[in-house]
Amino acid sequence: MNEFEIIEKILIPLTRGAKEALSLKDDAAIITPKPEYDLVITKDAIIENVHFLPNTEPGLIAKKLLRVNLSDMAAMGAKPRFALIAAMLNDSCDIKWLTSFSNGLKEDLDKYDLSVIGGDTTKHKGAISFSMTLIGEVPSGRAIKRSGAKAGDTIFVTGTIGNSALGLRALKGELRNWGTKELVSRYNLPEPRVEIGLKLKANAAIDISDGLIADLNHICECSEVGAVIYTDKIPLSDSARKLLNQDSSLLEVILTGGDDYELLFTSKEETLPYATPIGKIKKEGGIDIFDKKGEKITLSRYGYTHL
Amino acid sequence: MNEFEIIEKILIPLTRGAKEALSLKDDAAIITPKPEYDLVITKDAIIENVHFLPNTEPGLIAKKLLRVNLSDMAAMGAKPRFALIAAMLNDSCDIKWLTSFSNGLKEDLDKYDLSVIGGDTTKHKGAISFSMTLIGEVPSGRAIKRSGAKAGDTIFVTGTIGNSALGLRALKGELRNWGTKELVSRYNLPEPRVEIGLKLKANAAIDISDGLIADLNHICECSEVGAVIYTDKIPLSDSARKLLNQDSSLLEVILTGGDDYELLFTSKEETLPYATPIGKIKKEGGIDIFDKKGEKITLSRYGYTHL
Repeated sequence: MNEFEIIEKILIPLTRGAKEALSLKDDAAIITPKPEYDLVITKDAIIENVHFLPNTEPGLIAKKLLRVNLSDMAAMGAKPRFALIAAMLNDSCDIKWLTSFSNGLKEDLDKYDLSVIGGDTTKHKGAISFSMTLIGEVPSGRAIKRSGAKAGDTIFVTGTIGNSALGLRALKGELRNWGTKELVSRYNLPEPRVEIGLKLKANAAIDISDGLIADLNHICECSEVGAVIYTDKIPLSDSARKLLNQDSSLLEVILTGGDDYELLFTSKEETLPYATPIGKIKKEGGIDIFDKKGEKITLSRYGYTHL
Repeated sequence: MNEFEIIEKILIPLTRGAKEALSLKDDAAIITPKPEYDLVITKDAIIENVHFLPNTEPGLIAKKLLRVNLSDMAAMGAKPRFALIAAMLNDSCDIKWLTSFSNGLKEDLDKYDLSVIGGDTTKHKGAISFSMTLIGEVPSGRAIKRSGAKAGDTIFVTGTIGNSALGLRALKGELRNWGTKELVSRYNLPEPRVEIGLKLKANAAIDISDGLIADLNHICECSEVGAVIYTDKIPLSDSARKLLNQDSSLLEVILTGGDDYELLFTSKEETLPYATPIGKIKKEGGIDIFDKKGEKITLSRYGYTHL
């Protein structure tokens, strides 16, 4: 395949007919914004050996790239519309690789209903990496920020927590082989909470990428509040619960491990059908964490730090 | 410096007070679009050993990253407003490195009047690379595309052509040392034609990144036309002209070398104060290139290909 054929057969299907893409033939994409809507824009990169292991199936890499960005959209309460991709490839990315990447991405673009409208492709001799820019829409002034948490708010999380961090440990051979397939698949492929994001009744929200406590701390710092968390209320998958019952030191992995891509949010509601309450926002700064015996625990770290 | 201090001292100044950045504390940026304007969005990546050499001064890398993207904006006739950056760093990027990168970027953000509103930073063990998303504004329906060239249009270029490709050869020690400092500085630091882009009277435009002939070919293919180019009309810097007089084989470097980041556009005008006419658009496909003796020449390649 030459460059023209690659564009026609591998890239153009990703636009799903969006006129904004200008058939991927121009220097840029053009968006005519909807009146009365704000645009929400996020950008996340993933790198071989950091965010995915070498020899990961290319379609899975594509889906992970899209889904970590979709998770940011969900946390803002925005509807994802458009994606741009910078692909930094190397010689291992042959036509078969590219086709598999594109097919995986196309499946998820269909699933979450958005279009690729531009990007950039470069080959080099180093690690494969991708950066994605995602553009979403939200009615003017209605985006959910990290800074809106209020004392008295209930803290909620969607789904279950810690699966991805435990899955990574399983992949590295550090865990017993109990139900770890479920955990590994969660590490490989997060489930961004896009649908829940669109109906979120929240004063503040974030997606859990750095770790439950680290991301809660981001909300607390932005909102100038503190939090109380009860670890026995944190929803766990069956596999995670079994592992934790065997080895209680894994609690710290669950609290700080990151890559869950669940939503963590605060709300004036006490209960909600789509999320589990795990604690409360308090006026004074700091995060107090209580274990199942009601004893306060301390952590060696809150989660992943970027720098 | 901890992560908080890095954000406050190195990243926040890059927002230049833009409220869209949400103080870089959220999962995404929020833009409220201007009524009656389209948004133009482009994304380009640069990678160590491909787009810049190792040990390049970090401020220069930052400026190059911004300017290659500004050049795409210029080619669309759009006013640049906002940037998002994905930084893939390694251990060589210490605080001094980051400060130098940020200071260089800030200088150019001031010069071109735009703000960083988001991004992502990751460390790994491989090559340093960056991806930038640039967002610009243009009155609705007024963006200039590659597809609008018409038979009879005059073909123009801004500035002078070939300096960057000759500069890269000089850096590699492949050229005599005549005026190569000027050429090398052009390779290191392009001059995007943002101001000219905003007043461009053009039916079609592109910025010259792949090479003069390769990029002209992009316009011809998108517009379903052909072109005639007269090489003696192509504007050259004094340094480039001296080198070409010594070695006529460098003409191919000038025609196909890329990274000029000048604008190439077609217009119904015959002359314009801000650009040099170098040929004509014709109805029949293909690009005919005539040398100073009026003889048709052929090239082994049109320019850089991405895949």
